[in-house]
Amino acid sequence: MRIILLGMGVVGGSFLELLELEGADLYRKYGLHPVVIAAADSRSVVYNPRGLDLRNILMYKRTHGSLQGHPNEVEGLDPVRDLDAEVVVDVTPSDFRTGEPGLSHLRAALQTGKHVVTANKGPLAVEMPALIEMFQHKGLKLLFSGTVGGGTPFLRFVGKCLSGERITSIRGVVNGTTNYILNRMEDGVSFSDALKEAQEKGYAEADPSNDVDGWDSAAKLVILSNWAMDLGVTLRDVSVRGIRDVRITEEMLSRGRTVRLIATADESGLRVRPEEIDRKDPLVVPGALNAVSFTAEISGRHTLTGKGAGGRETAAALLRDLVELKMHMGGSEPC
Amino acid sequence: MRIILLGMGVVGGSFLELLELEGADLYRKYGLHPVVIAAADSRSVVYNPRGLDLRNILMYKRTHGSLQGHPNEVEGLDPVRDLDAEVVVDVTPSDFRTGEPGLSHLRAALQTGKHVVTANKGPLAVEMPALIEMFQHKGLKLLFSGTVGGGTPFLRFVGKCLSGERITSIRGVVNGTTNYILNRMEDGVSFSDALKEAQEKGYAEADPSNDVDGWDSAAKLVILSNWAMDLGVTLRDVSVRGIRDVRITEEMLSRGRTVRLIATADESGLRVRPEEIDRKDPLVVPGALNAVSFTAEISGRHTLTGKGAGGRETAAALLRDLVELKMHMGGSEPC
Repeated sequence: MRIILLGMGVVGGSFLELLELEGADLYRKYGLHPVVIAAADSRSVVYNPRGLDLRNILMYKRTHGSLQGHPNEVEGLDPVRDLDAEVVVDVTPSDFRTGEPGLSHLRAALQTGKHVVTANKGPLAVEMPALIEMFQHKGLKLLFSGTVGGGTPFLRFVGKCLSGERITSIRGVVNGTTNYILNRMEDGVSFSDALKEAQEKGYAEADPSNDVDGWDSAAKLVILSNWAMDLGVTLRDVSVRGIRDVRITEEMLSRGRTVRLIATADESGLRVRPEEIDRKDPLVVPGALNAVSFTAEISGRHTLTGKGAGGRETAAALLRDLVELKMHMGGSEPC
Repeated sequence: MRIILLGMGVVGGSFLELLELEGADLYRKYGLHPVVIAAADSRSVVYNPRGLDLRNILMYKRTHGSLQGHPNEVEGLDPVRDLDAEVVVDVTPSDFRTGEPGLSHLRAALQTGKHVVTANKGPLAVEMPALIEMFQHKGLKLLFSGTVGGGTPFLRFVGKCLSGERITSIRGVVNGTTNYILNRMEDGVSFSDALKEAQEKGYAEADPSNDVDGWDSAAKLVILSNWAMDLGVTLRDVSVRGIRDVRITEEMLSRGRTVRLIATADESGLRVRPEEIDRKDPLVVPGALNAVSFTAEISGRHTLTGKGAGGRETAAALLRDLVELKMHMGGSEPC
């Protein structure tokens, strides 16, 4: 399976490391032989039609900070449009206003007949219903496990484990940064100090306002609710409020209550907002963890909790999607 | 798909109700047309080769307390051995010492070439590795989603959502009764009063010692760890301690700690025992909920929480297994 990798940040790097590490296993278990023929960072594209040397690429990027000047560098070329491959793996940064650069990558993949595995939330936040339809119409797969929950398989859970039941509501804590901040505020730390801590620990995304003002949560809610409840919504359909004005008081804690940034999809629509909540609620999770509750018509409320981010974890989600794609393209069923 | 139903308790009744309710949907979505040709309670068997009238059977059982005297009653017949059907659904009570009556049902199904969907933990606790091997050898399916977690798909989660990764440990709260009791003890209620409450609420199983002394948890741990970690174990391999001696003190709670009955499978073996645990740990869930953490090699710790029991919920799990069986026997892939 020939792969074009877009994005060489933390997730892109971890993805290449994981392919290196798991390569033999993937072939033995699933007949999947991934060959990365091209990799791009924001400045450069490297290309080898017989497959790049992953260890070499990783080392070069680490030493030089970019792929510029690498012996395999090719110039003046759009990797998705101009190269031949079965799948594009997109781990470029999410932009919730324009959806770019992800949106252009998806359009190019559609036009040139390539499947996509993506961890970029931007395009889905902006126009998921149309994208799903276009990929289906072309008979191409658009897989996006890595967009929500890092390595915690929220989407796969609701798709594979609750199938056959209607999902009546979703409520989740889907942004690790704000969850970390609110947990620290429970300990008496101020909002701004807690934000600083989160940034020092590498939890906060490039633009902290995406986290703190609720947009990252809203994008994930769009993806979750389209997938699980078939709502056909975009970011414009979500009412969004962030955590800048939140106060967590001693009095509140003594009543067994706290505040969490909750993303909800139910019969009254989609919203992200800080909510006072029972500290024993399964959505109240420590640190930068994520938690999502799916309420199914018959079997009730199911809550899944896990690390919501991380390079290695998100790379594991991308790998699961590649295996699913391989099964779709023809291969032996796993397990 | 012709079904023989063994057991007409809460789960059996809910299963028939669900078939009534979802019948049309099951056919439309999955091409599954379930026909219950026989149903048995502890005293009687009713049989109609063209399919029983489910509403009538439910009503009769409710009014008379048993199936005895029903117009479709047949005597002197072993339903699994003597009747023709594709699948046996076993919801008879779990016995962790002998595995009976479930074990005999499974053996009869094996000998007469029938698939099995079961919620009976007994046979699996007693000899799961051998049973798995025998069903595989005969090319028959043995599906047991309903044995752990009621309608919460713990087994399906680890099988379908974390596939491709090695599971390095399992830690879970898998018995709702003891979790309810420990939660009430946190509120200052004594063990014996809390047990009484649990019984009044219908949480406790027929024999409360199965819950309170840890055997129900141990049986579920055997099933989970064989499935997720391929350990090849039985109940004899689990070190088991119950909650009769537990004390939850004010001092412990003020330190942010509490006690839960935790079932663990890791490199040092299988054990069930009350453990002091951080109150913020995702395994600390309220009421009679269940929670299981699976630690995967790459993506880390995932915790799934939900109602661990309930007739309707467990029936939903049985239905998911029937759909899976239908897919296996040939049918269109769901979703």
